Amino acid sequence: MSATTQQETTKSQASIQPLIELVKSDMERVNDLILQKAGSDVEMIPEVAKHLIDSGGKRLRPMLTLASAAMCGYDGSDLDGHVKLAMSVEFMHTATLLHDDVVDESGMRRGKQSARMLWGNQASVLVGDFLLGQAFRVMVDVGSLRALEVLSSAACVIAEGEVLQLSVAQNMKTSVDDYMQVIRSKTAALFAAACEVGPILAGSDENKIEALRRYGMELGNAFQLIDDALDYGGSAAALGKNVGDDFREGKITLPVILANERGDKEAKAFWKRVMEERKDVTDGALDYAMGLLKETGALEDTLKQAREHGAAAIKALDAFEDSDYKSALIDAVEFCISRAH
Amino acid sequence: MSATTQQETTKSQASIQPLIELVKSDMERVNDLILQKAGSDVEMIPEVAKHLIDSGGKRLRPMLTLASAAMCGYDGSDLDGHVKLAMSVEFMHTATLLHDDVVDESGMRRGKQSARMLWGNQASVLVGDFLLGQAFRVMVDVGSLRALEVLSSAACVIAEGEVLQLSVAQNMKTSVDDYMQVIRSKTAALFAAACEVGPILAGSDENKIEALRRYGMELGNAFQLIDDALDYGGSAAALGKNVGDDFREGKITLPVILANERGDKEAKAFWKRVMEERKDVTDGALDYAMGLLKETGALEDTLKQAREHGAAAIKALDAFEDSDYKSALIDAVEFCISRAH
Repeated sequence: MSATTQQETTKSQASIQPLIELVKSDMERVNDLILQKAGSDVEMIPEVAKHLIDSGGKRLRPMLTLASAAMCGYDGSDLDGHVKLAMSVEFMHTATLLHDDVVDESGMRRGKQSARMLWGNQASVLVGDFLLGQAFRVMVDVGSLRALEVLSSAACVIAEGEVLQLSVAQNMKTSVDDYMQVIRSKTAALFAAACEVGPILAGSDENKIEALRRYGMELGNAFQLIDDALDYGGSAAALGKNVGDDFREGKITLPVILANERGDKEAKAFWKRVMEERKDVTDGALDYAMGLLKETGALEDTLKQAREHGAAAIKALDAFEDSDYKSALIDAVEFCISRAH
Repeated sequence: MSATTQQETTKSQASIQPLIELVKSDMERVNDLILQKAGSDVEMIPEVAKHLIDSGGKRLRPMLTLASAAMCGYDGSDLDGHVKLAMSVEFMHTATLLHDDVVDESGMRRGKQSARMLWGNQASVLVGDFLLGQAFRVMVDVGSLRALEVLSSAACVIAEGEVLQLSVAQNMKTSVDDYMQVIRSKTAALFAAACEVGPILAGSDENKIEALRRYGMELGNAFQLIDDALDYGGSAAALGKNVGDDFREGKITLPVILANERGDKEAKAFWKRVMEERKDVTDGALDYAMGLLKETGALEDTLKQAREHGAAAIKALDAFEDSDYKSALIDAVEFCISRAH
């Protein structure tokens, strides 16, 4: 597996590079603002926040905000709104990660021990709340009520998606529609909001706002589908979490739904036993599950759906003239898809 | 204790009654909005939210928002901003309760089983996040950037206070200043914000905005001091939680800080053993602690400080002409103080 990982990393870096280059100077200011706003006299807050901030996330979401704003001609000369909203988006994401770790009882996050393992559930919940508060405070400072509306709605939808995921967990009756609603809410909604606030700041017309919202939504769907596929086929290093985490948590994702639908009586009994009854959830069972996912084509079809959402994301950009930003946003889609190959 | 409790209840109801009467019709609309905004297609959300909403909190904070706005002449004829902000304040409070229960590992909340006992930590974290998101969404809808600034700042300060409380927990070196910073942040900041947004909506001048902020802050300080005293002297019914919860959680509050400062060598060793080392935390130890709190005057001095903050709250209202609202706000202070008698 490790040779493949090496290739993945190289390929991934290659195609996200144009986006990184284009927003580089603004991202430095986003990063400065992130460190500044994660600060507090209460020592534990910057400690926990920096653990996550320094853990090497790609910061894809704030880059999308910066690129969307710039593609629509926002120059930030008034209030640096793009930098502030990009920071807010990243803090919303970081807060979600902290709360997710508590909910998932995760031991690893981005290849490091999760904050809850180091500081406890309590700190993870409360520092998440602090970062969410700071996210709102900074976006209020930008002064765009419409951007506030988009981002506060996203916060609700994300939480709804997480609760829905909880409700369908360990339930093999979860349908493809249920699953898609979960990932649209918990993941794609923030990608969509991150992209939508760019043209809002720039004062773009409605069809461009809608186009970038759509781009973000479809990119987010693709991103999560790939993530869920990787859970059954990446390495801990590439994934930043352990292979099989979803399996061990009884999280019902598309690969499992498809494999169950297509499985024979014995396969269905297996999925019911491990995912619902949580019995015999061993490394051997994980290997067996991965075999079923391959032979039924469930893993390949999950990737196919990811590619379709990726194509829809790229299609949404038809609303824009060709530009370096547009190319970089197209490449970003390909980067997300390529993580799985 | 139960005879006293009966008296408390009667006396308390008597003095909060004017406030309840004055804001009654608006509170009905706040309650409708609360139920509406706690709704979601994801079933578990209204279930958990309603458990808390129906559990008989007094809704003091939203009443303060309504009364503050009305006292300053806001008639709500444009956007019903006071009703919406009152709802937002209550949701911020409810979200904090849900997250607190996870942090405190509480088994009871307002005399009922806590949400985390019924639905698990996961649902408490996520439904809290949803309510916080809805709070922001509704306040954005009001469209006052200044009110948004006040409430989003309060959200950060509350989380900071909760983390600070975590840092000083089980540490007998906690100073009176540390303690006051905790309660100012975790409790008084939301009371202050609840009162401050009223005159902001009404377009009042700065000295009235500052006066109501100060009123809320001092009332909040008094409220929490009384709460912390009641933890060593109320009944579960009056308190809505178990007597001795703070003691059992090793939460260092003013009564304990004062009793420790004033205690002899033996008393200091006792506090260190039970609060820091968490050894022998028995019902017998709680009785012994309550004895120390009484004989050192620690409990009485905590109540004295609460009365001083209450007096400062009432003093802040000097900025306003006499009115029914002003009397009701003064009575509300006396209601909070009287809970302890």
